Amino acid sequence: MALVLGIDGGGTGCRAALADAAGRILGLAEAGPANINTDVDGAAANIMAATRAALARVADAPDPAALTAVLGLAGGTIRPAVARLTALLPFSRIRVVNDGITAARGALGDGDGIMAAIGTGSVYAVQRGGALRQLGGRGFLMGDEGSGAVLGRALLAAAMRAADGFRPMTPLLAAILHEHGGHEGIIGFGNTARPGDFARLAPRVVDGDDPAARAIFDAAVAGLDADIAILQQGARLPVVLTGGLGPAYARRLEGRWPLHPPRGSGLEGAVAMAVALAAGEG
Amino acid sequence: MALVLGIDGGGTGCRAALADAAGRILGLAEAGPANINTDVDGAAANIMAATRAALARVADAPDPAALTAVLGLAGGTIRPAVARLTALLPFSRIRVVNDGITAARGALGDGDGIMAAIGTGSVYAVQRGGALRQLGGRGFLMGDEGSGAVLGRALLAAAMRAADGFRPMTPLLAAILHEHGGHEGIIGFGNTARPGDFARLAPRVVDGDDPAARAIFDAAVAGLDADIAILQQGARLPVVLTGGLGPAYARRLEGRWPLHPPRGSGLEGAVAMAVALAAGEG
Repeated sequence: MALVLGIDGGGTGCRAALADAAGRILGLAEAGPANINTDVDGAAANIMAATRAALARVADAPDPAALTAVLGLAGGTIRPAVARLTALLPFSRIRVVNDGITAARGALGDGDGIMAAIGTGSVYAVQRGGALRQLGGRGFLMGDEGSGAVLGRALLAAAMRAADGFRPMTPLLAAILHEHGGHEGIIGFGNTARPGDFARLAPRVVDGDDPAARAIFDAAVAGLDADIAILQQGARLPVVLTGGLGPAYARRLEGRWPLHPPRGSGLEGAVAMAVALAAGEG
Repeated sequence: MALVLGIDGGGTGCRAALADAAGRILGLAEAGPANINTDVDGAAANIMAATRAALARVADAPDPAALTAVLGLAGGTIRPAVARLTALLPFSRIRVVNDGITAARGALGDGDGIMAAIGTGSVYAVQRGGALRQLGGRGFLMGDEGSGAVLGRALLAAAMRAADGFRPMTPLLAAILHEHGGHEGIIGFGNTARPGDFARLAPRVVDGDDPAARAIFDAAVAGLDADIAILQQGARLPVVLTGGLGPAYARRLEGRWPLHPPRGSGLEGAVAMAVALAAGEG
């Protein structure tokens, strides 16, 4: 029996799923991190550990070299890392993609649709006629529009501008200034903060009804709405909003677009892509 | 004769000016860097070297301990550094301020006015009734609106958004993408670039007539105009636009505000502040 393998891997761990040619999952297993942006050799070892553990759950399991595999991995856009990883793995057919791609394939299923994953960072994916394309993202410094990190940074910047009198002071902005020790404290925070540190402020932007928070979130919602409109190209494809801030944006865009919950996980997306690859469609 | 001392110091060097009680400059000298953000001891040594060299140019020069001194220094907002520096210097009266304050005092003279210094970074100063206040700035990550670094970053972000189809591609954006090696190259550049590296792209934003450049610069001009309007508080104070991008903004704001060239340098501003301090007005 020809089996396929789906892998979903990132900085905290990787998961393997073995499935038959119809996509029915036969064995699941987990292992350590698989982020090929930081550690290709460790990722290869953990991917194989998870694969062998999944194979051990299947009767008459084939050799790993007989598997068709799709791997959605953090760092999967970095071509030299993908090439090194591919050389380390035994699978007969292999495709390595960014974990955003498998997440989108899982969230959208096999139909046309748009996914926006908005957490600490943000990224879009569009699926049309079976072709999946990832857009947006680009990181905290020059992109990740609407992400938690960008919203948190906007809140800090607004607090400093309010302290200078360039915008109205609000209770939330006054609290932010007080907690950080004013201008100097905020600048000092920014000198060492990582995107995740900025993103911890995001709930105060999206949940509250402070006028400054509302202005920042209104602008982010309008930006996401405009981006979705461009991705729709005049259509009304299903839209899936995932990530930690997905529900907050969904509340604001309800009725604007046909919103749907994610159909499945990134691991299910990897399996579906492996089934298609084995059938010669991938 | 009671003399006053003005010091203008930064990362590349420091200048000292001795003047009489009327502000007439009697002796000038230069020495090495005086950035108390990075090296207080070195700054103290270079300030004294410049001071002694300036004193050597004056007949019947007093002892440095007899001088009233105002020092405009990079890092002059950092209180612990100011306290350490002050303890190392012999002057009878001393005031240490950020070099942006002395630059504004030099640019505005003793009249009311607004200064916007826009180079790699940006910062504002307002002088009203002899009181000088610095605003804005706050650095590349969360402020420095309209600065060269912020304009350059906006150009790179626009190029990546155009490549994704979220805004129209233009000749300049296509050239930026080509020069950097596309999305991945721009993200890689951003991972290591300093504000000065982003600012090197600013001339292509402010000088060209590419539609994307025009949109970015139009927004920056509108932002500066709105900030000046707030700083005016309904008045029409003289506005001095300095820094590498000052002339580009001045061309766009001509007629909107009473624009004036800077009256003098930061060193002249330090001397003027020292004269006021010696007269008991500082």
